[in-house]
This record gives sequence, structure tokens and C-alpha cells, in this order.
Amino acid sequence: MLVQKYKDMLGNKSVIRTLSEFATARGKEIGYENVFDYSLGNPSVPVPQEFTDTMIRLLQEKDSVELHGYSPSLGIYSVREKIAASLQRRFGVPYKAEHIFPTSGAAGAIAHAVRCVSEPGDEILTFAPYFPEYGPYINLTGAKLKVVPADTENFQINFEAFEKMLSEKVAAVLINTPNNPSGAVYSTETVRKLSEILEVKSKQYDHKIYLISDEPYREILFEGADAPYVAKYYADTLTCYSFSKSLSLPGERIGYVAVNPACEDAETLIQMCGQISRGIGHNCPSSIMQLAAAETIDLTSDLSVYETNMNILYRELKALGFTCTKPGGTFYIFPKALEDDAVAFCNKALKYDLILVPSDSFGCPGFFRMAYCIDTEKVERSLPALRRFVEQEYK
Amino acid sequence: MLVQKYKDMLGNKSVIRTLSEFATARGKEIGYENVFDYSLGNPSVPVPQEFTDTMIRLLQEKDSVELHGYSPSLGIYSVREKIAASLQRRFGVPYKAEHIFPTSGAAGAIAHAVRCVSEPGDEILTFAPYFPEYGPYINLTGAKLKVVPADTENFQINFEAFEKMLSEKVAAVLINTPNNPSGAVYSTETVRKLSEILEVKSKQYDHKIYLISDEPYREILFEGADAPYVAKYYADTLTCYSFSKSLSLPGERIGYVAVNPACEDAETLIQMCGQISRGIGHNCPSSIMQLAAAETIDLTSDLSVYETNMNILYRELKALGFTCTKPGGTFYIFPKALEDDAVAFCNKALKYDLILVPSDSFGCPGFFRMAYCIDTEKVERSLPALRRFVEQEYK
Repeated sequence: MLVQKYKDMLGNKSVIRTLSEFATARGKEIGYENVFDYSLGNPSVPVPQEFTDTMIRLLQEKDSVELHGYSPSLGIYSVREKIAASLQRRFGVPYKAEHIFPTSGAAGAIAHAVRCVSEPGDEILTFAPYFPEYGPYINLTGAKLKVVPADTENFQINFEAFEKMLSEKVAAVLINTPNNPSGAVYSTETVRKLSEILEVKSKQYDHKIYLISDEPYREILFEGADAPYVAKYYADTLTCYSFSKSLSLPGERIGYVAVNPACEDAETLIQMCGQISRGIGHNCPSSIMQLAAAETIDLTSDLSVYETNMNILYRELKALGFTCTKPGGTFYIFPKALEDDAVAFCNKALKYDLILVPSDSFGCPGFFRMAYCIDTEKVERSLPALRRFVEQEYK
Repeated sequence: MLVQKYKDMLGNKSVIRTLSEFATARGKEIGYENVFDYSLGNPSVPVPQEFTDTMIRLLQEKDSVELHGYSPSLGIYSVREKIAASLQRRFGVPYKAEHIFPTSGAAGAIAHAVRCVSEPGDEILTFAPYFPEYGPYINLTGAKLKVVPADTENFQINFEAFEKMLSEKVAAVLINTPNNPSGAVYSTETVRKLSEILEVKSKQYDHKIYLISDEPYREILFEGADAPYVAKYYADTLTCYSFSKSLSLPGERIGYVAVNPACEDAETLIQMCGQISRGIGHNCPSSIMQLAAAETIDLTSDLSVYETNMNILYRELKALGFTCTKPGGTFYIFPKALEDDAVAFCNKALKYDLILVPSDSFGCPGFFRMAYCIDTEKVERSLPALRRFVEQEYK
């Protein structure tokens, strides 16, 4: 028999995908260059040439049986060492290879982290606005994702709501900073306060509450952002990372879980990841990707275009009267819609060939997301359409 | 809290890994070239040059953002088309792209196939001797792996035992042909009979019993082997494949699930795989691997060394008096040990620097596995050690 829970999911088409398909179809009518498609969060800047050169060199120089051979079940040791050394160098946390588990991107990292620390029936809290895929990521393990309402002022944490929801059933808290969709970066004050609450509650409930920190946008930070390295502030942190945004290779599915060495079970948790992998069939990311990512560990693509685009959009949105928190990173901006119903707002925008994503599926109604991982030239060309949209529909 | 079921697994070190570590340690004493290490099933022949050339060409010529970009959630469409066309051309089964789901190797394929068709508590049957990783692959989903005792005469199927175990609780049957560890290939007669029984029982129980056919060794076939394409004989077949052995790249984690178009739910099953992927965090194998494997779809490494090695070993083992079924494929041979306790037998072999794997963990005590994916020259050098071992311990 087909398993009903997966069959039932087939009907639910994601809003973002529907909008993206609309954009593609409209592009066929008027030319895609004339569709101001802010729907998809796909990196738009080239992969660093050094990464490509490294791949080619590995292919040309390394023995093919060794290059493409099985990784050990915990990942290639030299790769784990290089990732640990980089984290240590950059953030001053004394990771060793034994604290690193390479994964199939951040999705794979979260799949392992969640299974390490939660049983079916446990709750995992996250904060609105949140990446909608957290729903299936968590709920399909049997644990339950609960969403803490947003701090719509600054897109930091609504601590009052959080403390109310932080019951004994909570096994872990999942955060995402820099944040998709808000573009906000949690401040040192926010991370410190979060950590203090988790410490108090872990003692009170006599079980650790783990912090799963999903950080694929870590390298896309804008001027002035106070961007603390989360694990420095809380011992029981599992950091989930992906090279998808930093190296512009989301399709290559390469990332890792890093467990804070200050966590008393750090090495055990990594070994557990190896066991979890057997059950979910990952068995490590691609060998050559592990090697190439490790050899270019501190490089990134030229990510500056995202900040350029953000500044253009932020200035324009403010000038048009939008309420909008200035993003500290990512390639997203998250303004308040000009009417309560963000779906209606985004539908009206389609008439102006503006593809905006309503915030309902991010757990924070009344806002919209623009993914500005597109050419700056197109961002600039979209401004007159944005102006027309606001003037004709809302003035 | 750490999840106990994964923590508990940490103590159980695999026999194969322990033996392999012994071989490495012994190699440091006497030189690894003098250790006759038949423990590990890792491909030993080079990756086809055309595959490497294709990778380099993609890296040099294709736009990096496109090359390394996200795959659609069901995999890259052109890749799925090429896989389908190849299966159709080779086996005469009318697959289309819609029947193919690219995965992280065969492990990823099985992870998806099992989740499509079994709920926690359901039984999945497999046949001894079997690949021990099927244990965690199945049991960690919540379904239960049950092992049908071996047909130790020919390593086909023990149908009498199978029919007794094929209860209403069985959601799927998992087969592996060509087989690890026996090297046997299921004959047309075997597959036909299996299929007939499954059809009768599906009707009797009023629910489909799916056939999951794990075929990573499909291209390693020896002269004279009758190697039917399993899906041709049973409509409800999910074929799990990996390019790991055919292209010698097990570390790259590239494979697929192909659902027989004759299965009435074929396209639904593939779409369900896309949903399952969200829960287990695969989200498709590496983009460049999908593209490169598809472009070299009908190529294989030069696999002839495996047959050469098999013939040398088979001849010698028979001459030494071993009971042994001649392998029809793979790079394994599975003779009967010269005493009832295969573990004791393999321990004695260590004195002769012969690393043989006892069959207990394959669910078929009293035999041993030799993985002859090593240089022919080393196979030949191992024969005197094999002779000394048998003469001194068993004559």
C-alpha cells in the first residue's frame, strides 16, 4: 500500500513554487527579463573560480579510485579537520575534526541534528517568520514543530511568547540567523538572552534543551551587522551549515553539522549522526564535493551584489512608505504589506509583473518577501513597476 | 536528551570494519601488499576516462550558477529522461522520466523506496545471505526486516521458507541480485516464480506486495549468467540502482529509484519520493553528478578484472575441496567454511594474512565472503597462503 502521509502531501503545492511557475509562464509572454521575479532564493553569483579550478585539478591529478571512493561513515577525516580549523580560526571555538559531520547541505544537516536530540512526540520550537520547509523537516521525523509568533518590530525574538511556549516537552529550539525570510540577523543581546533562558529551563526541566542553529546565510552579512557566532553563547549548540550560498552551489548538497566542543556529548552526537545516516540513506555527501569545499574553505563567491541590491530596494521601499526592517544579511527583505491580506497584496502586484511572496507560509501574516538574488540592473528596472503598483493600488 | 536508539548503536562495530582495521594494522607491520585483504567491497578499477572528461567539460563550459544550481525536487528532468531512455533501450521496459527519481546512491534509493510502501510495524522480507546494512536501512524506518533462510545449495530463493513467512503483514520484499555476499544472480526461473507468488499473495491479502530490487551490481555479470531484468517480471517493482560499481564511484552517492511503468501508481510513487526527501533531508544528489552520470549513462569502467579474479579464486577453492557456488556476477565469492563455525575459520585464516569475512552477519552461518575487488596479481599471490592455510589447519 502506498503510504498515505506522503501521498497526502502531493496536493499541497508551495506558494513559492506556484509563483515561480507563474513568473516562468509570464516570461514566455513578455520575455523573462521583463518579469521582476523576486520569488526564488537561488544564489545568482558565480561559483568562485578557485572552486572550479580545484574540482578540475582533483579530477586531473588524483587517482580516480581514491578520489571517488567511499568516504568513511563520518566523512573524510581531512575534510572534517579543515572545516574544524576554519571554524576555530574564524570564531575562536576550539572545534576538532571529531565535532564535524559532513552532510548533504543544510537540509541533511538538520535531518541529522533533529534526529540526534528529539524523539517522536517531542516539540521543537522555531521563531516566525521561518523557512516553511522546517515543517516537513521536523514533522516527518515524528517530532512536532511549534512556531513562536514573530517579533514584528525588529525580527529578533519575541521572548515573552517564547517563554510561554518553552515547556518540558521541548527537546530543541531551531533558529535561523541570518534569517530567511526576514533578512534579520540575531544580535549578541538576542543570542545571549536566548541562551540564558535555555540554560535556566534545561536545569529546571532536568534535561538539556539543544539549540539547532541553521546558518546557511552566515557569510552574507551587510555593513554594520552585529552577527555573533551562535555556538559561542550556548554549549549545547548543533550548528547546521551549507556551502550553498557562500560558494553558490546549492545543487551540490554539501554542508555539515558542527557540534560545539563545549557540549559534553559533542563527540557522541557526531558518532550518532553516522548511525542516523544509515537509517535515512545519506551515507555522506559526494566525496569530490567534500574535498573541493574543504580546499576552498575560507573562500566565498563575490557576495557584494546582494548588499547592493538590498540597499537599492530598502531605500525605495522606505521612500514609498513601506514599514521595513533593514536586513543585516541574506538576500531577502521582508516589508509589511500595504493591506492586511498579504496574499491579496501580492496578487495585485502580479499585474505589474512583480513577483512577491506573501508571508503567510512563513508563519507571519501581513508581510511579503522579496528575494533579491537577481541582477542589480533588473532590481533597478523593477523600481518603476514598484512605484506604479503602490501608486495605482494604494494611493 | 540524546536519542537512545542511535546511542545504543554506537557499540556495535561491524565485523567487516573490524577486519578491515586489522588488515590496515597488519599492513603497517608487513606491508599492505602482503596482506591478502578480501574484506572490503570497494570498486578497484578506474573510473571511465569519459566520465572524468565529462566532469571537466561541464566545469569548464557550463555557466557555474546553472551547473551547480538547485535541482528540481524530483531531480533534473533531462537526467531522468536519459536514465529512462537507457533502461528502455537495454531492457525493453517503457520507462519515462516520470518513473525515475535520482538518489544518493542505492542507500538513498532504498531509503525512499521503503518509505513509499511501508508503514512502521509492517514487515519487509529479504533473503539470506543479505547485505547487513539492510538491517538499519529498514528497521530505522520503523518497519521490520525479516530474513528468509538461505537456499544454501544455489543461493537462489528458498521458496518453501519464503511462502511460510509471506504473511499479511508483509508490505514489500527486498531482493539483491547479483547478490552481495553470494555472488549469485537470480535466474529467470527464480524471478518468475517469485513474481507469481507475490501476485497470488497480493490478491489473497487484497493489498499490493511491492518488490524492491536492489541492483548496484547489475553491470558486473559473468559469462553465462542468466540475468533477467527483475522489473520485467513483476509490475509493482521499485528498482534501486547505484552508479557506484558500474562507474567505480561509490563516494559520489549517485543512483536512482525506477518505478516500473506497469505499476499503476508509478508516477505517484515517484512524486512521493520527492516528499519523502524533504523529511530525510536528501533533496537530490549532487547536480554535477546527476549530469555527468546521465551523459555517460551506458558506459562502465572496465569490469573484466572481477571475472578474471573470480575464475582464479573459484578454480583454486574447488581444487582445495571447498563447496562453492560459482558466482554469476559481483565481486564476491561465498564458499562454505571448512568447519561449522565460520568465525573460528576466519580467525585461523588471519594467521596466514588472509582476511576473510565470516558469513554470520549475512544471516547465513557457516560460510565466508571474499571480496575480490583487488589486483589480479595480489589474488595470485594469495593462493599459496590459501593453500598453506587449508593444509595446515584442516588436513
